[in-house]
Amino acid sequence: MNNAQPTLAQLAEALGAELRLAAGASGEQVPTGLNTLQDAAKSEVSFLASANYRRFLTTTKACAVLVSADDVESCPGTALIVPNPYLAFAMATAIYDRTPTPAPGIDPSATIHGSAEVAAGACIGPGAVIEAHAKIGQGAIVGSGCVVGEGSEIGARSRLFPNVVIYHGCFIGADCTVHSNTVIGADGFGFAPAQGQWTKIHQLGGVEIADEVEIGSCTCIDRGALGNTVIGRGVKIDNMVQIAHNVQIGDYSAMAACSAVAGSAVIGKHCTIAGGAGIVGHVTIADRSHVTARTLVTKSIEEAGSYSSGVPFMESRSWRRNAVRYGQLDQMARRLKALESALKQQGQAEE
Amino acid sequence: MNNAQPTLAQLAEALGAELRLAAGASGEQVPTGLNTLQDAAKSEVSFLASANYRRFLTTTKACAVLVSADDVESCPGTALIVPNPYLAFAMATAIYDRTPTPAPGIDPSATIHGSAEVAAGACIGPGAVIEAHAKIGQGAIVGSGCVVGEGSEIGARSRLFPNVVIYHGCFIGADCTVHSNTVIGADGFGFAPAQGQWTKIHQLGGVEIADEVEIGSCTCIDRGALGNTVIGRGVKIDNMVQIAHNVQIGDYSAMAACSAVAGSAVIGKHCTIAGGAGIVGHVTIADRSHVTARTLVTKSIEEAGSYSSGVPFMESRSWRRNAVRYGQLDQMARRLKALESALKQQGQAEE
Amino acid sequence: MNNAQPTLAQLAEALGAELRLAAGASGEQVPTGLNTLQDAAKSEVSFLASANYRRFLTTTKACAVLVSADDVESCPGTALIVPNPYLAFAMATAIYDRTPTPAPGIDPSATIHGSAEVAAGACIGPGAVIEAHAKIGQGAIVGSGCVVGEGSEIGARSRLFPNVVIYHGCFIGADCTVHSNTVIGADGFGFAPAQGQWTKIHQLGGVEIADEVEIGSCTCIDRGALGNTVIGRGVKIDNMVQIAHNVQIGDYSAMAACSAVAGSAVIGKHCTIAGGAGIVGHVTIADRSHVTARTLVTKSIEEAGSYSSGVPFMESRSWRRNAVRYGQLDQMARRLKALESALKQQGQAEE
Repeated sequence: MNNAQPTLAQLAEALGAELRLAAGASGEQVPTGLNTLQDAAKSEVSFLASANYRRFLTTTKACAVLVSADDVESCPGTALIVPNPYLAFAMATAIYDRTPTPAPGIDPSATIHGSAEVAAGACIGPGAVIEAHAKIGQGAIVGSGCVVGEGSEIGARSRLFPNVVIYHGCFIGADCTVHSNTVIGADGFGFAPAQGQWTKIHQLGGVEIADEVEIGSCTCIDRGALGNTVIGRGVKIDNMVQIAHNVQIGDYSAMAACSAVAGSAVIGKHCTIAGGAGIVGHVTIADRSHVTARTLVTKSIEEAGSYSSGVPFMESRSWRRNAVRYGQLDQMARRLKALESALKQQGQAEE
Repeated sequence: MNNAQPTLAQLAEALGAELRLAAGASGEQVPTGLNTLQDAAKSEVSFLASANYRRFLTTTKACAVLVSADDVESCPGTALIVPNPYLAFAMATAIYDRTPTPAPGIDPSATIHGSAEVAAGACIGPGAVIEAHAKIGQGAIVGSGCVVGEGSEIGARSRLFPNVVIYHGCFIGADCTVHSNTVIGADGFGFAPAQGQWTKIHQLGGVEIADEVEIGSCTCIDRGALGNTVIGRGVKIDNMVQIAHNVQIGDYSAMAACSAVAGSAVIGKHCTIAGGAGIVGHVTIADRSHVTARTLVTKSIEEAGSYSSGVPFMESRSWRRNAVRYGQLDQMARRLKALESALKQQGQAEE
Repeated sequence: MNNAQPTLAQLAEALGAELRLAAGASGEQVPTGLNTLQDAAKSEVSFLASANYRRFLTTTKACAVLVSADDVESCPGTALIVPNPYLAFAMATAIYDRTPTPAPGIDPSATIHGSAEVAAGACIGPGAVIEAHAKIGQGAIVGSGCVVGEGSEIGARSRLFPNVVIYHGCFIGADCTVHSNTVIGADGFGFAPAQGQWTKIHQLGGVEIADEVEIGSCTCIDRGALGNTVIGRGVKIDNMVQIAHNVQIGDYSAMAACSAVAGSAVIGKHCTIAGGAGIVGHVTIADRSHVTARTLVTKSIEEAGSYSSGVPFMESRSWRRNAVRYGQLDQMARRLKALESALKQQGQAEE
């Protein structure tokens, strides 16, 4: 987050790009921001991240475009030549980001327990609550209305947006981001059945989140029943994701919105779990597995690969006819087999 | 929200209904509220919105029933004759609604930045936070514990129930309702992969919500990556709905609970998206499309209509047998084709 | 929650277990906590709840193991013999639970309406808001940032974790637990269509929750449209569960994370609804029904049993081939039938 806008030449330097100026263009121009090729104004910088959009290079109004060396020929205007335009675009968003950062300090309306430790340069927003023995790291931001429970720790430079709740005994690393209304460390769902009723299994573990993790809004990461729920380094978790007790997620995996993982499942490293996908409890997902949208993973995945379930959508009328047949599938398979035998027999009879 | 209860005659007038009193009934009676035909007490008004319930007209205890002219013959008691009984019922609920409205004014425990503008008649609840340059419209209600981020605007008469978080740079129109713990304007889920790690794409856009929009509890509407996420006029969104960055939803569409729309999808006007339905990213849904419960829409819908996916539920035992066959479907189809050819050949051989 | 750790002998007594000490072991040992057979340290107590883990009895380091009389022979170390080891484990978790309990009293930063009643021994956390005529029972805990709406009641010893919102007119029984950011009593999703727009059906009912109910984080239980939404005694509800207006859930049923029930559905007693399952509106689910993960229940379940829907997951490549065939299922079924007829005819022709 910088405040002075860079010139094109400065932008090129910041992104490690080679600046190829179009005729009449100047490296001293100060772009106003970023946009897509189609929507960019004359003052904005754009990027070509996919060949599908190459045709827009000739019509874009952008004052400069992030392109790879391979595509620079197709770019009639000013080019910022980089090895990976999408990555360079991501880096550029950090330069143009204007997300407000509150000033360090403790708001007078916050409630800080006497035994809590708030490091220098940390910011505690209005109405936030820091409970006994909690530790807030250097430069961390605890947004307004957040609660950090007893003995929990927030690492250096991590930011909790407003109204996040961290229960007791949860450890969040450095450089993490947690968006509003997410809950970390609530009880896992554990009850022993007894005589038609449920006896609570108190959840004795906690939650351990490594560095550089980002977590969206309204997501739930439950504390472990025994031992901790563990989120690896650099993991990215979207909104409304459910992570049950004692789940482990390997480094650099990503889970899109509305996905869910049941208790004690272990997800490997570098996995991507697409939106709405579900993973049942106690299974293991191999490193570099990719699970497509809405898939329900019902057993362990032993090998890296892409996995799916579900049926295509169609007009409700056709769907209704086909869906009915789904309940007849086993019977159809048996009839098919019978036909094959009958036909074979007839064939033999004829010979 | 009125405080004096109307007489039957006044209720008829308010709803534009023709009052047909049963023998011995009086237009001066003051009904105590509304209820279904089956559950109504003698003091309550009811309604007939579907022919399925017509048989209850003769047994209901309701002191009056909202009916259409077509059904009035079947109604032995006092009738309130209206063109659309369900709509009249909806209008009547506004009369009997007792949702408390806090008095205008700023609670002393709220934190209002010096540069924020709070219009006359607005209400800011206990512990709410209004950040720099934010604007709260006339008669708007910001519930306790809500946060309105830097530069964001809440339109006239809109109401945020407690603990809603609106990030910076979000614009909410007039006469909107947002229920508790919903988050508007958190970061969209955008990361560029680079050497096995993720580089954040800072989300530079905002959220724009038109007038008369209602949003349920624990719903997430993410800010745009570039440009805004846009919700049209009169849109109704239920609880736990996920709306990703740069989604656009057309005027008067409705999304039921637990539905989700991935990034940059465009939903037309007057669509209904049923509970748990999902829409993948970058697709377009035609105006007046209806998506049934739990359907996953994986490509654009070009024409208005009703769309579905999924398979029927059944006893787990039968389901297990049929589900196994699902993985053999392609093979079954090939075997079927082979049989058809073989049979045709045999037929020909015989001739 | 006890503070003095029990000796093995005291633990046995508390759990109603028979203590069978291994050679050299002492009933005066003070275990430090609980753990699984595999992970237990020498100072921890473990349990054998499933025959699958019996082989770990010989290798576990646990100082004692909760086992049934049937399994005690396989246990070479100290045994705590109980009729139901899993239930005894659940009881033991209560002994070792260290979830902090705030001291009774009203935090000075809380906002309590003059007409609200807060019973002796209740705890109202920082920033909590108790509105007019609300009642907080004896020993109840209202966490920081919670809101209890006008006229609502929280029963004795119930606990709301931080940032829970209870709207007006909601009744929560005794000994309930509600985890953070859950919303109870927001408006059900009701709108009457009129000339292409939506007219709100104000939600005039409330929510009624019986005793001993536990509710997870970020869950939504909507108020009734007319009459109340009702949750029975001892019901257990996980995170991100959606319970729509006028749903009724019978005593001792359990709903796992991300499940959802649409309006006016009635779920019987002792049902289990697994993760991500959905139940459409206006259906009835028989007592002791079990719905497996992600199943969509589209009509009433008349008889106790286990019910499922969905298709198995597989490698995306195979899945794609089979999924295409799903849209041809009806046609395949017709072709199969035609083949059967043709074959029969040929057979007859040959005779």
